[in-house]
Amino acid sequence: MKKEINKGLRGVIAGATAISTIGKTSQVLNYRGYSIDDFAQQASFEEVAYLLLHEKLPTTAQLNKYKNRLRGFRNLSKAMLQILEDIPANAHPMDVMRTACSVLGCMEPETDFSKQDEVAERLLAAMPACMLYWYCFSHQGKRISLLSEEDSTAGYILHLISGKQPHELHKRCMDVSLILYAEHEFNASTFACRVCAATLSDMYSAVVSGIGTLRGPLHGGANEVAMELIQRFETPEKAVLFVKDMLEKKQLIMGFGHAIYKHSDPRNKHVKEWSKRLSALAGNETLYQVSEAIEELLRNEKNLFPNLDFYSASCYHFMGIPKKLFTPLFVCSRVAGWCAHIKEQRADNRLIRPTAKYIGPTPRPFVPITARGN
Amino acid sequence: MKKEINKGLRGVIAGATAISTIGKTSQVLNYRGYSIDDFAQQASFEEVAYLLLHEKLPTTAQLNKYKNRLRGFRNLSKAMLQILEDIPANAHPMDVMRTACSVLGCMEPETDFSKQDEVAERLLAAMPACMLYWYCFSHQGKRISLLSEEDSTAGYILHLISGKQPHELHKRCMDVSLILYAEHEFNASTFACRVCAATLSDMYSAVVSGIGTLRGPLHGGANEVAMELIQRFETPEKAVLFVKDMLEKKQLIMGFGHAIYKHSDPRNKHVKEWSKRLSALAGNETLYQVSEAIEELLRNEKNLFPNLDFYSASCYHFMGIPKKLFTPLFVCSRVAGWCAHIKEQRADNRLIRPTAKYIGPTPRPFVPITARGN
Repeated sequence: MKKEINKGLRGVIAGATAISTIGKTSQVLNYRGYSIDDFAQQASFEEVAYLLLHEKLPTTAQLNKYKNRLRGFRNLSKAMLQILEDIPANAHPMDVMRTACSVLGCMEPETDFSKQDEVAERLLAAMPACMLYWYCFSHQGKRISLLSEEDSTAGYILHLISGKQPHELHKRCMDVSLILYAEHEFNASTFACRVCAATLSDMYSAVVSGIGTLRGPLHGGANEVAMELIQRFETPEKAVLFVKDMLEKKQLIMGFGHAIYKHSDPRNKHVKEWSKRLSALAGNETLYQVSEAIEELLRNEKNLFPNLDFYSASCYHFMGIPKKLFTPLFVCSRVAGWCAHIKEQRADNRLIRPTAKYIGPTPRPFVPITARGN
Repeated sequence: MKKEINKGLRGVIAGATAISTIGKTSQVLNYRGYSIDDFAQQASFEEVAYLLLHEKLPTTAQLNKYKNRLRGFRNLSKAMLQILEDIPANAHPMDVMRTACSVLGCMEPETDFSKQDEVAERLLAAMPACMLYWYCFSHQGKRISLLSEEDSTAGYILHLISGKQPHELHKRCMDVSLILYAEHEFNASTFACRVCAATLSDMYSAVVSGIGTLRGPLHGGANEVAMELIQRFETPEKAVLFVKDMLEKKQLIMGFGHAIYKHSDPRNKHVKEWSKRLSALAGNETLYQVSEAIEELLRNEKNLFPNLDFYSASCYHFMGIPKKLFTPLFVCSRVAGWCAHIKEQRADNRLIRPTAKYIGPTPRPFVPITARGN
């Protein structure tokens, strides 16, 4: 028994993983040994999800089969659609994602761990479907079709949001975003999935834990707050003045710095490049220029660097994603990493049950209610 | 950074708590310094829930107010009832509990932590209501009323299950059971609640994590399996023969031993006494005698002791609780401890984010899909 309190378990090695490694000083992020830089240039989200879940990059034939299976898992039952229609428009979108995953677990339970790959595929395909069916029904009164000719998750999401064939550049940007958000070692939501999975509970329960944990403002949601900031300004100059004032008031600027990375976030350069590209495509570079001005200011004043969330905000905006779906989109991507960790936990399981230091009252005699006064 | 892997975090002190202390060798369980032995003799579940959540035993006036608030939180909205009706009878009851809690979080969100006590009260009152509304509708085709003259949680649960005024002894036995299941330090489901709460997510998300984690067979569910065993036998002699055979085949007998307690479970003597009492009341002592015979056999052959779950099984049976509601009942009780831990985590929060030892492939070059063969 170690005597000290490991608050937040910071630096405590809670298990072993072969899924990803975060280079604490060298600013590298690899999924199963492959650099995310290569994925951002040359791979699709489905290839990456396959790698995370099956340990190997797929061949063309394997990838085609995998994408076909995912497409086959997009539609939802009438009972499922009914429940999504019953959730009001003012519900928190992450509450909707958590509930949708939980309901799916009621309707299509993982009765046996031998089905875990199928459940992971169902979740990869159905989480975007649940998100967009609820959103379009509750916000636009539309019962959208959950089928699409788009064979990628990225294209599927963009098609359902706009109802139109998405622009090729938007599709690739979404693909890269899904790749970069897919996995990040023992972050809080992934650890939550593993704590749940370690009681040998089902995959839906574990993913539901992940969603609920990601919902907290100390974890997900930074890109939504970053968007609220950058869209306020007409010029980079106005942004600099405003943010300087925020810094003087000791206000936190979301989308900067990282608990693990100390000098830069290896995912940032990719989304930054995409933000620039989509900004040019839109013919309106204000949002990108505002973002760059804030980045420069924070580097000079606070030695802070943008993380994945900061330029993701403008990328999502250019692709026409409503702000309230930014964190739910994180779920659609991270579910790949979560399910990979759940599989890994199960393959070499031990119940996760730490202990606590007791700091409460010493043993004391019970006082019957009649002797407690009024 | 500690170098060794703390698999399962066994013995790692993950935080401080003033809520309960488990006497690892002295076989004592105290809630905020008071022994559960006194609660089992002299307190009600509502007194204990109040103590867990508010740190003090209530006065008569405080307890009356508290019970009135809980009664006022029993009813469910039409939208909520509709969703419960949409969940099929063959759903796993713990999936239903997890979903009900998640939907409640959609419909009645905790918009601000200043509402946390109200949310805890809502959950204490509404989880039994959700459980029994779904059960009676899906299994008996009945839309039961969620109002009741019974002013205790124990009486309310028994009234809703049978539709009748419960026997006083049954009511007290249920009260004691709710007290004994209410809290148990950093067990897996409570730790799951704290991991979620530590991202500053809402109370519903954290409780949903707790339910999903409790669902796993390494955590909840032992009393259901114990029931399946003890109800097979017409005589203690037949039980002994059968269980001896199970032991020879190295099969696990559920409801015995404990991860933390080494010699006995301090909660056992209370449920055992109640099992005996309700068995006499029922005029059929077979189930109790079978249980005692199995207890004696396991003590002699394996030096194992019954934990809280073993005699809880027969207690629940005598009170007319369907077996599939045993673990959901655990939720109705433990939600008191979970919410107390969520409050405690929030009051002195740090994100719970351990690290992992990387055991995967070393960095390797990406192979484009066209070069991977078929």
